[in-house]
Amino acid sequence: MSLLCVGSVAYDVIELPGRPPVEVLGGSATWFCTAAGLLSRPQLVAVVGDDFSEDDVHFLRQRGVDTAGLARKPGTTFRWHGRYHDNLIGRDSLKTELGVFADFSPVIPPDWRSPDVLFLGNIKPDLQGLVLAQARDARFVGLDTIECWIDNFRADLVRLMPRVDLLFVNDDEVRQLSGEVNVLVAARRVLEMGARAIVVKRGEHGAILVSPEGMALLPAYPLDAIVDPTGAGDCFAGATLAYLDHVRDFGPAAIRRALAVGTVMGSFCVQGFGPRSLADVRLGDLRDRVRRYAEFVSLDGGRLLSDLEIG
Amino acid sequence: MSLLCVGSVAYDVIELPGRPPVEVLGGSATWFCTAAGLLSRPQLVAVVGDDFSEDDVHFLRQRGVDTAGLARKPGTTFRWHGRYHDNLIGRDSLKTELGVFADFSPVIPPDWRSPDVLFLGNIKPDLQGLVLAQARDARFVGLDTIECWIDNFRADLVRLMPRVDLLFVNDDEVRQLSGEVNVLVAARRVLEMGARAIVVKRGEHGAILVSPEGMALLPAYPLDAIVDPTGAGDCFAGATLAYLDHVRDFGPAAIRRALAVGTVMGSFCVQGFGPRSLADVRLGDLRDRVRRYAEFVSLDGGRLLSDLEIG
Repeated sequence: MSLLCVGSVAYDVIELPGRPPVEVLGGSATWFCTAAGLLSRPQLVAVVGDDFSEDDVHFLRQRGVDTAGLARKPGTTFRWHGRYHDNLIGRDSLKTELGVFADFSPVIPPDWRSPDVLFLGNIKPDLQGLVLAQARDARFVGLDTIECWIDNFRADLVRLMPRVDLLFVNDDEVRQLSGEVNVLVAARRVLEMGARAIVVKRGEHGAILVSPEGMALLPAYPLDAIVDPTGAGDCFAGATLAYLDHVRDFGPAAIRRALAVGTVMGSFCVQGFGPRSLADVRLGDLRDRVRRYAEFVSLDGGRLLSDLEIG
Repeated sequence: MSLLCVGSVAYDVIELPGRPPVEVLGGSATWFCTAAGLLSRPQLVAVVGDDFSEDDVHFLRQRGVDTAGLARKPGTTFRWHGRYHDNLIGRDSLKTELGVFADFSPVIPPDWRSPDVLFLGNIKPDLQGLVLAQARDARFVGLDTIECWIDNFRADLVRLMPRVDLLFVNDDEVRQLSGEVNVLVAARRVLEMGARAIVVKRGEHGAILVSPEGMALLPAYPLDAIVDPTGAGDCFAGATLAYLDHVRDFGPAAIRRALAVGTVMGSFCVQGFGPRSLADVRLGDLRDRVRRYAEFVSLDGGRLLSDLEIG
């Protein structure tokens, strides 16, 4: 098994409602790998500045992340400053300082170029393309993106779609990418661009998988409190792809199960602050919650259909 | 089997985005019974004015509704005029004319007073109490309400909770009734008021069942177009309770299956305009969509758990 992740490693300054700003380890690849490390041994390709703490490198390694692809360059690490609205759903980006990330040109170590699973985290589409060109033998490719890339580099992104096995987007992103308002119609339009499957993330409302083999509905795991939603999408992707890497099965049923694992991992993510809180989640915790999740969604379809044999 | 429904029968004037206003048969009890008529033989208690069309009575009877409890009084039938926002989610109530509904005092025909299932549709809580007093032997009681009753008659409503087996509320209503922001915490608070189970309806995002026996997650059936969401909640309740009446099983597993049938019926509702469009839905259509729904939510929990037995 091998799982390669390319994305951002950053320091975030997070302002939660009624709290002072706090700086914390962040970035799409950090969250992805922290989640994935529970089930697989993710290989991380990213760049940090000379201000990046050795403690944080150590944290990632302890979580099972191979950091041989983490480049350290002169300059500052990518910083994002965000302020959440009272509902913890909306948020404003107050500041983005790219630092060494501005010149990031991902180089995949030679012996990582044929991964079983490749995750192209949220970076510029041409850089995602650059990674794909280096790791062209990847068996399964997941890709995440955001509105700013869809807005400004749409053609670059669309060009990648035929290489994507599982596209991670939220409602707004799939609408924007497709030009369609209805999420289902939008996802089908993106399938026509060549992606093999689309998972539409809807935050507290769960996710929908749309693929030619059918749909899967993944309601969110219900929680009675949320601390910080930062990183939930990356944890969702991280656990999803780590499960697929772990079981070495990329068929429709495996993807459906993987997304359930991703859903549950996302629920742990939003209950804490920063990736270190997620590292407290053990395999037993994940299994317990997956068991409950399977109960929450279980439906005796056979019994239901026979009950509806009326008249 | 017997299913008694008390609620409103009305004429609605509906304005969909970019369309002229159209008058159509409506009311919570009308929608409930139209949906329920597919699986059961609902008994309807409601009041209409002398302007109510015989055609509409005939329509209900054809749908399998027993209209012996439909009183006709001098005056006009309840009218509601609503205008939907462009997203078909938000809506404004432009006018409400109670007509004969203002003096509605439900009288349950003597031989309908021990129903298997009783649905207290969205009417004033004291009237719901009046119905409960007459049908005190009902084996299973469902109750629906709206913000205006929670706002103005909270004590009357809370007093009914110990008699309620399944409370139908949306996110905002359960928050308002409980004073809690988190939906799960809110639902648990309402359980403490005495309701045996709460189903929280979240429109396009499905529903959550919260009960002492556990939770059930019911994602919405995905649709690629919506015509008119009016009546969806009542159809959801109608099919849910009609299924329970049909199978004569009020246990937790039956309620979960019932809610899946309700979810699917709600999806048919929003694809058409007015209750007559719902009447085109046959049992075979319902079964086909229930089969697909069961596929969309199916998750091999056993396989998932064994895959997560790592190390």
